[in-house]
Amino acid sequence: MSLLESLDGPRGLDALNDQQLAELADEIRRFLVHAVSRTGGHLGPNLGVVELSIALHRVFASPADRILWDTGHQSYVHKLLTGRKDFSKLRLKGGLSGYPSREESPHDVIENSHASTVLGWADGLAKANEVRGSDDHVVAVIGDGALTGGMAWEALNNIAAAKDRPLVIVVNDNERSYAPTIGGLANHLATLRTTDEYERVLEWGREMLRQTPVVGRPLYDGLHGAKKGFKDAFAPQALFEDLGLKYIGPVDGHDLGAVESALRRAKRFGGPVLVHCLTEKGRGFEPALADEADHFHSVSRIDPVTGEPVEPSAGRSWTSVFGAEMVRVGAERPDVVAVTAAMLQPVGLAGFADAYPERVYDVGIAEQHAVVSAAGMATGGLHPVVAVYSTFLNRAFDQVLMDVALHRCGVTFVLDRAGITGPDGPSHHGMWDLSLLQVVPGLRIAAPRDAERLSEELSEALDVDDAPTVLRLPKATVGEPLAALRRVGGVDVLAEGARRDVLLIAVGAMAPGCLEAAGLLAERGTGVTVVDPRWVKPVDPALVELAAEHRAVAVVEDNVRTGGVGSAVDQALRDAGLDMPLCSLGMPESFVPHGKRAELLAELGLTPVEIAGRIGARLAPPEEREEAAESGEARGRGEDRRAGGGRRADADGTGGVRTNEGSMA
Amino acid sequence: MSLLESLDGPRGLDALNDQQLAELADEIRRFLVHAVSRTGGHLGPNLGVVELSIALHRVFASPADRILWDTGHQSYVHKLLTGRKDFSKLRLKGGLSGYPSREESPHDVIENSHASTVLGWADGLAKANEVRGSDDHVVAVIGDGALTGGMAWEALNNIAAAKDRPLVIVVNDNERSYAPTIGGLANHLATLRTTDEYERVLEWGREMLRQTPVVGRPLYDGLHGAKKGFKDAFAPQALFEDLGLKYIGPVDGHDLGAVESALRRAKRFGGPVLVHCLTEKGRGFEPALADEADHFHSVSRIDPVTGEPVEPSAGRSWTSVFGAEMVRVGAERPDVVAVTAAMLQPVGLAGFADAYPERVYDVGIAEQHAVVSAAGMATGGLHPVVAVYSTFLNRAFDQVLMDVALHRCGVTFVLDRAGITGPDGPSHHGMWDLSLLQVVPGLRIAAPRDAERLSEELSEALDVDDAPTVLRLPKATVGEPLAALRRVGGVDVLAEGARRDVLLIAVGAMAPGCLEAAGLLAERGTGVTVVDPRWVKPVDPALVELAAEHRAVAVVEDNVRTGGVGSAVDQALRDAGLDMPLCSLGMPESFVPHGKRAELLAELGLTPVEIAGRIGARLAPPEEREEAAESGEARGRGEDRRAGGGRRADADGTGGVRTNEGSMA
Repeated sequence: MSLLESLDGPRGLDALNDQQLAELADEIRRFLVHAVSRTGGHLGPNLGVVELSIALHRVFASPADRILWDTGHQSYVHKLLTGRKDFSKLRLKGGLSGYPSREESPHDVIENSHASTVLGWADGLAKANEVRGSDDHVVAVIGDGALTGGMAWEALNNIAAAKDRPLVIVVNDNERSYAPTIGGLANHLATLRTTDEYERVLEWGREMLRQTPVVGRPLYDGLHGAKKGFKDAFAPQALFEDLGLKYIGPVDGHDLGAVESALRRAKRFGGPVLVHCLTEKGRGFEPALADEADHFHSVSRIDPVTGEPVEPSAGRSWTSVFGAEMVRVGAERPDVVAVTAAMLQPVGLAGFADAYPERVYDVGIAEQHAVVSAAGMATGGLHPVVAVYSTFLNRAFDQVLMDVALHRCGVTFVLDRAGITGPDGPSHHGMWDLSLLQVVPGLRIAAPRDAERLSEELSEALDVDDAPTVLRLPKATVGEPLAALRRVGGVDVLAEGARRDVLLIAVGAMAPGCLEAAGLLAERGTGVTVVDPRWVKPVDPALVELAAEHRAVAVVEDNVRTGGVGSAVDQALRDAGLDMPLCSLGMPESFVPHGKRAELLAELGLTPVEIAGRIGARLAPPEEREEAAESGEARGRGEDRRAGGGRRADADGTGGVRTNEGSMA
Repeated sequence: MSLLESLDGPRGLDALNDQQLAELADEIRRFLVHAVSRTGGHLGPNLGVVELSIALHRVFASPADRILWDTGHQSYVHKLLTGRKDFSKLRLKGGLSGYPSREESPHDVIENSHASTVLGWADGLAKANEVRGSDDHVVAVIGDGALTGGMAWEALNNIAAAKDRPLVIVVNDNERSYAPTIGGLANHLATLRTTDEYERVLEWGREMLRQTPVVGRPLYDGLHGAKKGFKDAFAPQALFEDLGLKYIGPVDGHDLGAVESALRRAKRFGGPVLVHCLTEKGRGFEPALADEADHFHSVSRIDPVTGEPVEPSAGRSWTSVFGAEMVRVGAERPDVVAVTAAMLQPVGLAGFADAYPERVYDVGIAEQHAVVSAAGMATGGLHPVVAVYSTFLNRAFDQVLMDVALHRCGVTFVLDRAGITGPDGPSHHGMWDLSLLQVVPGLRIAAPRDAERLSEELSEALDVDDAPTVLRLPKATVGEPLAALRRVGGVDVLAEGARRDVLLIAVGAMAPGCLEAAGLLAERGTGVTVVDPRWVKPVDPALVELAAEHRAVAVVEDNVRTGGVGSAVDQALRDAGLDMPLCSLGMPESFVPHGKRAELLAELGLTPVEIAGRIGARLAPPEEREEAAESGEARGRGEDRRAGGGRRADADGTGGVRTNEGSMA
């Protein structure tokens, strides 16, 4: 039985000697490479924090002491040490989450995989300890990349101000997050890493000054009398110490003894303290260490020896189509610049960066800055394309509204991973953009249905110079081109039935499924016109005119139904005095767990069969509805029924939050 | 003719000698006290930047050089120097904005009054200059308080990294924004302010070391050989310099010559540089200087000599009712803590802070941190009440969704200034919260209609410990209590008509107006039931049941219609299979300019007469509708008609953004 197999929770670590701990670390690395190779997952980050995770659990008593992981994709070792060793369904339906999960373990606290939040959580937990008179510890692990996020700064500023409130911050410094960490802070951290030379000068200088009363003593005392001590004035931990944080480090993050010793000092300190820990991403796995582009940050299924993918790529991704378009656009339009928030490769901008390096800006994990600096660039005569994951734009809503839209800036947002994304779970699904952005005056949103439309709509977006435009792309492979029968206004008519019963409005990548659903409805005698509005905001007047020619309207979108495209179309119809039946299908107002994209869409009732069935049931004459609703019950998950005709429905079983209705009635 | 009167644009400053400039500064201060006393406005901040504004316009050539003001409430002097001298209708309808405004002047760039954005704008404009090969300068003025915001950090990190891209940052350090600036950064700035003692030690030490070869020389050289120079190692500008920003200062912000000289050095520097400028808020106006609570940050109409308000307070504000409730709650509930983002006084928490100083947290201008730290506190067993302006919660949407809601934290948000606020214009109206927050799973929103309901709903909110709750309060005086006839589910029925024609759903403070409108409709023979749902999210099943008993439904809310309560009610009705006519009234999807609250509500068609008229027109039989719509045209502004039955409508004349429909068809 291996040490890892026999380990029974974190307290089991206390009994292990140095050699056993080193063995355990080796076992964990082998386990990670083996397990993650089979399922895919975050490999590099976890290989980097093996010793750190062991040390944290030896020094702190989780779960009374709170060990907090920023972003959480580096919590695999923590999972192993806290008793979760079945990685066979990692990130798959029913298996372990790729992030901490409160449902899995009391040792997990933060489930959110958006970066830079951990210091704020830690500040809050430390304040709660203080108010409640608890001596438990709070320790937060944050990457150097995540320190570039504004939330980290806001938290540091608050944490540093409370000199007597204990809180340990571990900076896991591997010089990169997704991309190499950028900015002034990165340069500063680099200086800290080379602190040895300072220490030598410092030690020598201090001795000299002490030994030379006439010259040195007053200077030494003068510095001591000032707010900063002598060492602080020389050694380069200035940035953190200037804020008021005790700085310990840098520490070799793979020297278990050194890390433990630093953490024990930090634990005893009694105030806010920062431990600067140097680690190597991908440690112990040759293919990862040899790969400068950091492809092993997150992998699909790979060969555990060579690191090569074991499945051929499934086809052209939306991301790669966008990437190719940007290279084309860059040649034609010298005013087009690209902005990314530490995601150059994942959002498809690598080609643009190679071709036009002077026109690409990686701002770090700093979506707010990506957006506000784009407003400045647009005002300065450029046309920025800000490419971010849909879910991360939530960080910059205020900047889209106030800085870009209020100032009528021609900025184009390209939202990758819009809709259901899959294995990364609740915080990675891009299911809110169509609702949030609806309220932004003047903003236009396109959802391309195929590669040709992506090209067409990107060009249209880049021609708008006095308002924001948005393109949203799913995390999927691009399907076959879907030709239109005709274009009415800006709306593409994709299919027409024998009769004009239902106008089916398909948003973006939902088009193929809607066409299939229309075929199924036709078999039942319902005539369906399927349209792609191309630009879903604002609602095209042609869409309202088309609706008026039908008996009913249905909208299908891969976004939360609340306030989405269906809702906007509904309001446009109402405003035109059209009170016809409308059926809106999309995601429920709850958090959607991890799983495969196709699996999740099926669960949400967004397959062609379900779409057809639900539209049919919803638009049936009233006397047939009850029956249809009954039979549709099991599959109708994508439609909230919280206020359904007096039948009260709670969370819909997709892992959503309870609504607490009971506790307040 | 005074110097100010004769000044013709900023270049007129070049010809003035030192004495004339000092005279001009005096004239400007007298003008500001006189003008702002009559209209109300931001007085203290502007009195503090008179010399700084003059110096900026002497050193930089606006508008080619971009002078950017963070928050913008300190731009009055800038307005005077750029030719805007008619302050008679400051912040009133048709008069000067209280912030920079692109419509007013080419010298204005950023209209947004949300803090901490200026450095991001500056970075973007500097990047545009670089790409376009322009030598124009960019200078950004930011307060010390705004530096606590995460956006400022994200921007500094990016600005500092580009060593050759010129950009001047002026930190206007008055040791307070709205409240005294807090946190580690504030302590650091305080250290910088007392740099004199360092300079003395430094100068002495440097000489000594030079004169004493055996001891001093190697130390001096060692430090020179390291990345930081000798002075940098001793003097305390470490934080900014560590990031890679050249630091100049501190400079006395009221010594015009000193400020000008520092700005000229900065302008010549050729890279990112920070000028630390010490100013005194309220400079030259005794009542402001004598007031520690900083009531002169923003004033209503005052006596220009004594500073006393000239109009008696109009009654009890919603804010003060909330403040009193919090004091009561604090006594009963030791787990309740309060969080503010540099707005203790304006959001009504001063009383709570006096009574329970150990349970109140001012996090600085850092809404993201307010929210995420509240998630931590809730997880640690407390019940935080986060009190912020509605419009500022937009900054923390991601944290509400991901940190609070996903983790099922019992955090209560109290949104002050929800709805139309008035003189502060587009970026201060609280008109988005009801739409944004709709998508957040599990979150509940209450909109109290009177003081009693505020108390009741706050108590209900504090009883929820596993989901976020929200109360929204308008910027207004609280009206008379409005008793309910009965309660159905959680819904208060406020009035019933002779017939059940229309169910009129009144959101919060819209209740009195809706009751009046119902009376007007009754005169025309329409029977109206007026209800207050109390909790507007989630939609109460009782509301759907009530709707089913009526022929039509109307919803009135002081929020943008898009995705608001009307939209949520609509979806709930649709989901229950109810396709009855629905009329949704609220704010249009555009930016609303400054003006008095009552004036703006009238313009938006939200007076009782307009509400009655619009409901009547919308719900009339189809044959009467066209006529009714014609006559309602002038007043129907609150209802978007962008997709109205084929009639395309652009922005609705309320200062909204163009929708660019023309440019893309």
